[in-house]
Amino acid sequence: MSFIFNQKVLFKHCDPAGIVFYPRYFEMINDCVEMFFYEIGMPFEDVHNSGAVPTVQISTTFQKPSRHGDQLVISLDVTRVGGSSLDLSIQAFCADERRFSTKSTLVYVSPEGRSQKWPDAIRDAFSPYIRSNT
Amino acid sequence: MSFIFNQKVLFKHCDPAGIVFYPRYFEMINDCVEMFFYEIGMPFEDVHNSGAVPTVQISTTFQKPSRHGDQLVISLDVTRVGGSSLDLSIQAFCADERRFSTKSTLVYVSPEGRSQKWPDAIRDAFSPYIRSNT
Amino acid sequence: MSFIFNQKVLFKHCDPAGIVFYPRYFEMINDCVEMFFYEIGMPFEDVHNSGAVPTVQISTTFQKPSRHGDQLVISLDVTRVGGSSLDLSIQAFCADERRFSTKSTLVYVSPEGRSQKWPDAIRDAFSPYIRSNT
Amino acid sequence: MSFIFNQKVLFKHCDPAGIVFYPRYFEMINDCVEMFFYEIGMPFEDVHNSGAVPTVQISTTFQKPSRHGDQLVISLDVTRVGGSSLDLSIQAFCADERRFSTKSTLVYVSPEGRSQKWPDAIRDAFSPYIRSNT
Repeated sequence: MSFIFNQKVLFKHCDPAGIVFYPRYFEMINDCVEMFFYEIGMPFEDVHNSGAVPTVQISTTFQKPSRHGDQLVISLDVTRVGGSSLDLSIQAFCADERRFSTKSTLVYVSPEGRSQKWPDAIRDAFSPYIRSNT
Repeated sequence: MSFIFNQKVLFKHCDPAGIVFYPRYFEMINDCVEMFFYEIGMPFEDVHNSGAVPTVQISTTFQKPSRHGDQLVISLDVTRVGGSSLDLSIQAFCADERRFSTKSTLVYVSPEGRSQKWPDAIRDAFSPYIRSNT
Repeated sequence: MSFIFNQKVLFKHCDPAGIVFYPRYFEMINDCVEMFFYEIGMPFEDVHNSGAVPTVQISTTFQKPSRHGDQLVISLDVTRVGGSSLDLSIQAFCADERRFSTKSTLVYVSPEGRSQKWPDAIRDAFSPYIRSNT
Repeated sequence: MSFIFNQKVLFKHCDPAGIVFYPRYFEMINDCVEMFFYEIGMPFEDVHNSGAVPTVQISTTFQKPSRHGDQLVISLDVTRVGGSSLDLSIQAFCADERRFSTKSTLVYVSPEGRSQKWPDAIRDAFSPYIRSNT
């Protein structure tokens, strides 16, 4: 199953060419990941007392531009769970047109910045979202 | 030769963990690319009358976090010039510690969004910044 | 009646002090105003073909800081409707604690930047949200 | 004497109407204030170990829009120094056209959020920038 995050393209996202300014896509991606962790019982507002989940690698292709008012459907899948890392595949569509696709790796780190193991409850919570990496 | 862009890490760039929020790195990258095009005689404020230079692919690895006050030196190299595309390699260092490395592809498009050829003067201006892609 | 806009404080909104970075509040305010115009039948994504609704004046007091995870309830009231201008009062609360209060003036302008009269249907749509300015 | 901060309007600052998105002006204002405190010997990257300098009130008038490529000259004057507060007047011009004017109040607070007195060295450093509030 994919985690679904809906995001309308707002005025603030758009540049003088009338399309989404790509750093704003990364804010949307960050919001989607934050909402995913909230959904699985690991709200970032609580995590950040015991560590952090920084993104260490991210690769994105922007297939088509998005315009103000577009209704984006962003879907997130887990493609690999490591001891303290997580690989994600994130896609955005507007109707049936793909707008961007991303692969990223996150790492769970302690407040001192050292990688730490995912809690068992969180590993279990990732399971329904795991998909073979294609 | 590399194009060099200096960027101090400011308060606005940093998150509750006290490190740069990664979408802000993409704003820095965008600023660096904008300044590079200004330097070679193709200011984005003029380009955007005759087209645009959207980023269509970008891959970034964040090797180490950056903190408020860090002085980043961002270097940009051209790794390939296509008919209407441009591949860039961008690296950020703080002293001798690498903070991120990016590979991106930009495309020069008309106001209607169709790819168009780089003007000869611009192709020539890219030359001194070309480096073999390693 | 007030127009209500719910906004959870997300990771992206917060600064190294762990509280909302105030320029991010202005993005929230802008989102709230955009959603209000959508609600009354004047979506900004359509407006921007026939003009724009820039903010020309805005005054804000930040009574208390907001933290990551806070659920903000932002309420918008119309305090004056001019020929081509609009005065708004916008307040944000978390539970019963006020976080900020804003007064702003917007102007409806043509694509060339000249003020133009609100359409009658829009003036009518403002009515239920008018409140005496206190 | 005024503290002067130069800011070119970049692509990232501009909205689909081709003018500065006003929350981006508040980022410029924040950058200007941060640079002012750096100049007078109180870098924010150091302050934030011993407290913070949040903005508690800000009022801004946007006289004219700014466009991509405009060279803004932002000037900052101190209009009042309180025990733990500071009133600023900030103006932006492009050539001789005023783009915005702001009055703001900042407060120096401890890490726990309580107001604390400006250090004497900082009070002295404010002096050359004090101007009667007009």
